[in-house]
Amino acid sequence: MAGEFALIERLLSQVRPDPNAQTSGLLLGPGDDCALIAPPAPGESFAITTDMLVEGTHFLHTDSPEDLGWKTLAVNLSDLAAMGATPRYVTLAAALLAGDESSAWVDQFFSGFTDCAQQHNVSLIGGDTTRGSRTFSVTAIGTVNPDQALRRSGAGNQDDIWISGTPGMAALGLAYKLGTTDLPVVLEQSTYKALHRPQPRVALGLVLVELAHSCLDVSDGLLQDLGHIAQASGLAATLHNAALPPAPNLVDPALWQQCLLGGGDDYELLFTAPTSARSKIQTLSATLKLPLHRIGQMHADGKAGTITVLDIHQKPVDLSNLRHGFDHFA
Amino acid sequence: MAGEFALIERLLSQVRPDPNAQTSGLLLGPGDDCALIAPPAPGESFAITTDMLVEGTHFLHTDSPEDLGWKTLAVNLSDLAAMGATPRYVTLAAALLAGDESSAWVDQFFSGFTDCAQQHNVSLIGGDTTRGSRTFSVTAIGTVNPDQALRRSGAGNQDDIWISGTPGMAALGLAYKLGTTDLPVVLEQSTYKALHRPQPRVALGLVLVELAHSCLDVSDGLLQDLGHIAQASGLAATLHNAALPPAPNLVDPALWQQCLLGGGDDYELLFTAPTSARSKIQTLSATLKLPLHRIGQMHADGKAGTITVLDIHQKPVDLSNLRHGFDHFA
Repeated sequence: MAGEFALIERLLSQVRPDPNAQTSGLLLGPGDDCALIAPPAPGESFAITTDMLVEGTHFLHTDSPEDLGWKTLAVNLSDLAAMGATPRYVTLAAALLAGDESSAWVDQFFSGFTDCAQQHNVSLIGGDTTRGSRTFSVTAIGTVNPDQALRRSGAGNQDDIWISGTPGMAALGLAYKLGTTDLPVVLEQSTYKALHRPQPRVALGLVLVELAHSCLDVSDGLLQDLGHIAQASGLAATLHNAALPPAPNLVDPALWQQCLLGGGDDYELLFTAPTSARSKIQTLSATLKLPLHRIGQMHADGKAGTITVLDIHQKPVDLSNLRHGFDHFA
Repeated sequence: MAGEFALIERLLSQVRPDPNAQTSGLLLGPGDDCALIAPPAPGESFAITTDMLVEGTHFLHTDSPEDLGWKTLAVNLSDLAAMGATPRYVTLAAALLAGDESSAWVDQFFSGFTDCAQQHNVSLIGGDTTRGSRTFSVTAIGTVNPDQALRRSGAGNQDDIWISGTPGMAALGLAYKLGTTDLPVVLEQSTYKALHRPQPRVALGLVLVELAHSCLDVSDGLLQDLGHIAQASGLAATLHNAALPPAPNLVDPALWQQCLLGGGDDYELLFTAPTSARSKIQTLSATLKLPLHRIGQMHADGKAGTITVLDIHQKPVDLSNLRHGFDHFA
């Protein structure tokens, strides 16, 4: 009948929830005033997170809509991963331009969104569409044992600090995209993927509930996010420069330091774990085929929330020129 | 530290969740990657809905921010009410203008949001803020017995059709606001309240789970939304013009018909119930001090989804000039 209803219908037809309601726990899917979901399994709770992506702030008009659809969901699943939760359900609210409702842009956006949903076995349970500048808001719901959920506040004194993957690649990709740096051809694809197709580290988070004391996903920058863990845990942290992922070949070291320590948007997991977990974490890295870098320690010396980066001579690295994290209102 | 984090902190400090976590079921509140909520009580499920409000589409730059904050939450609680669910938790994602983070506008928005949250005993469990044109997306979570939840598809043949309150007042208020009609002074306040301070009919929905067969909240217009019930239930519907809420004094009858049948945004509950429930519903109306109008019947004559309005001579009213419902992309 009407454009809006036809659009909702078209989108929902692409991500039908699991028809086996007994498996998915979805008692009533999209189309009514609310969706209904069954209680989680005994001993589990629901983990809930929400994120909004805005054109001009998080993405550009010229970005690939398929990649954007992927990322819109991925950044939310990353928050579930950072708690050690299993992704289950998502809602999507979308403001779209006049004309979008019948455009290939929306189909491609939804194709990317669906790829990510299917890869992580997530059901779209509801949504809303309206006219406005392109804005997407997702709420993601997962399940986790609340006693095992990975909180920021759980870091212990002398915990190792670990980071997954190679944070900094997304910021490097963004610098290249914005034309502020050149890149060797060999890095173009990997930095593009880091920026536009981040992989929520769901499988890692699910195992970390048994190994880690604290965790978050790096979205604001490694130093700033480590500060969040340190602050919440009442501890300080020291990073070892030599243990950090090194600059890729032909990338300016100063630029890399900025991307690695100050850049966000990689959605890698930053976590702390007791030293007794080292060998299990190294085995996990091999199993998941995912680099896990042990980059420093938590400690009780100095003011809570303080982060120090030491060079190979154990001297503090001067970070006064580093731009810290990302703040939409800074 | 940074504007964005300070803003989130400031907003959250205004709606702290219930400190009694055992009552609220909130195991972990805002501030981590996810909130954690306990399973619902035995026999209950979670009902989940999401709605987005965009400046220029749903509200104007000049609208009262306090009223807007109220309405942003109220329209979501209305969806919970329409399922017969008890509101429990909400998340809020907000795109805000540069400068908003330290403006009175945001404080006033949040004051209205908080009023609505406190009135309905709802905990804000998470959120996101970003820069963009002002856009608000809420996900609301309630609890309901899934076997009793009020679905659109549950209407029975010969069910009475009921509507709460006086739908049409919000559309009348909008027409006045946009300058397309004049209004007697006595109606200015009531239409303003209908448009800007809609009351989610939570208390009504909670009782209707025992009485009604189907329900939704009128947001797209009475005829269009009744069409949704009829379509989903595989029935047709007949309304009796004489049973509909009459035009307020001094309001043009043609304008009123348009507002009543075609206008949305009142968030009244439209429901169907067996004739055996009539006296209980009338008692309920007195208890809640809320008009409940019995306006027609569902039936199996004619094509499913068809709505007919009959005049006092049982002749179909000509509705060919009626603008139907609201479609953001029409």
